Amino acid sequence: MAAITETGYRPHGAARALASRRTNTIGAVIPTLDNAIFAKVAQTLQDALDARGRTLLLASSDYRPEREQNQIENLIVRGVDGIMLTGEQRDPAIYSLLDKHGIRYVNTYVHHPESLHPTIGFDNVAAMEKVVAYLYDLGHRRFAMVGGLTAGNDRAMERIRGTRDALRRRSVDLPPSRILEQPYTLAAGRASCRKLLSSNDPPTAIVCGNDVLALGALLEATAMGIAVPETLSITGFDDLELAREIAPGLTTIHAPLIDMGRLAADFLTAQGSDADAQSRHIELPAELVVRGSTGPISR
Amino acid sequence: MAAITETGYRPHGAARALASRRTNTIGAVIPTLDNAIFAKVAQTLQDALDARGRTLLLASSDYRPEREQNQIENLIVRGVDGIMLTGEQRDPAIYSLLDKHGIRYVNTYVHHPESLHPTIGFDNVAAMEKVVAYLYDLGHRRFAMVGGLTAGNDRAMERIRGTRDALRRRSVDLPPSRILEQPYTLAAGRASCRKLLSSNDPPTAIVCGNDVLALGALLEATAMGIAVPETLSITGFDDLELAREIAPGLTTIHAPLIDMGRLAADFLTAQGSDADAQSRHIELPAELVVRGSTGPISR
Repeated sequence: MAAITETGYRPHGAARALASRRTNTIGAVIPTLDNAIFAKVAQTLQDALDARGRTLLLASSDYRPEREQNQIENLIVRGVDGIMLTGEQRDPAIYSLLDKHGIRYVNTYVHHPESLHPTIGFDNVAAMEKVVAYLYDLGHRRFAMVGGLTAGNDRAMERIRGTRDALRRRSVDLPPSRILEQPYTLAAGRASCRKLLSSNDPPTAIVCGNDVLALGALLEATAMGIAVPETLSITGFDDLELAREIAPGLTTIHAPLIDMGRLAADFLTAQGSDADAQSRHIELPAELVVRGSTGPISR
Repeated sequence: MAAITETGYRPHGAARALASRRTNTIGAVIPTLDNAIFAKVAQTLQDALDARGRTLLLASSDYRPEREQNQIENLIVRGVDGIMLTGEQRDPAIYSLLDKHGIRYVNTYVHHPESLHPTIGFDNVAAMEKVVAYLYDLGHRRFAMVGGLTAGNDRAMERIRGTRDALRRRSVDLPPSRILEQPYTLAAGRASCRKLLSSNDPPTAIVCGNDVLALGALLEATAMGIAVPETLSITGFDDLELAREIAPGLTTIHAPLIDMGRLAADFLTAQGSDADAQSRHIELPAELVVRGSTGPISR
């Protein structure tokens, strides 16, 4: 690549890195590009890496294990120093491969302190306990959950499980008919809300697995003339910009994306004794943000 | 990388590609991850590449020419067969570098039939003519434009120019005080709408450079109690899912993302005589989609 300079082109980090064994390139595999939340954490990771003279290469798995495997392998072949992954659930052979090639990696969006694999993220189950405790204390007893598709998505699984367990602890039933698994789209949020509200025993609170589903539910309730929060409370997860800007504002869990991206950058770029000294599990807070989409149950 | 198989791990395309000169990896550099529209076209590109046994590596420039240069160089160093770029405006040295290394590339989101560099996209200027013609025919004469930041963004420039020229052809004035350049956020759309409506001579139509700005303007108008479309018409650009789902629906230009991603995949993976025979400029339609956020001017 010495030829690069012949064009009068000033070589950046990538070309300089050829002189060393390190490539100064970090990879990230996220489940989908088509969700603002992953885009946001990738952007944050990139900003943090940029400040450290590293470059990010991003790949998306589309929630498909085979594609994720392919993407991770390709990042290794292309030469990256480290990889940020999303969630923990994947073929053990992938972890073996990463270890074999000495590629530093970290699982994000989850906090699994007992795991062999490093995690930087938050406790999805505990976050749902906060949502349920808040709604329960407002008087809600008829709940529904609109979660993400759980296949290949341990975060979606943990959020559904967290909601169910938190309700069970309060002796509140969450029948299977009121747990919907849906793709993360506004249209799916709308359709789920419509379906739940048209049942004989409609919920007074719909807990959603992410903001996109919750915003869809909110738009549908508004379109149906259902008063939010007087008749129906709706909660999300993530805290997208729209959650703050829409009226009524969406009550949601604020996912700590900025810290997650920054700490992942620290973890993935650490070397030598710094790397050895790093904690393998970092838990970040995932706090409830109360806005206008939730309120006390009205009789 | 023969070691990959020793773990019992089945090699995918990437490992197999090592046997040939081609890497079966395509790169894409988009301006930002933090905008659903680029994420969407990247997802479409990835789906199309996946169907062709290729892998996508994505990089984001954050609208910064230096970072884009760094990302393109890194993709070349890491080994990609082709690169999808966004817009045309960049340092000529980058194009020289791509040519020197025989990297096939294409500029998307623009259609510049006279350019030396291949383009697959749409005519941003012509799209704004459609928006203005439609609003003008509804009776609007007091316009404002809330465009994106034009630095390093030829699409944002073309959309502002297209709006101004279309109005000039109709002898409608668009004074500088009614042209705002803003980052693509809901908050900026809200603030711009508030500012424009609080002037002595408020516009009856706000033309926005993308849907995020337009949705922000729509939320602000609603919050201010301004009737849309009776008192104010608002248009966007892109046609995000939210443009369709929000009430009132957002009138906007439908950006042909799916075709753009698919055709870019065709272009970047073509080889030999197929590649030579390909048209270097493909124009895709960018049609106006009329929804509830626009209407006739009421006196």
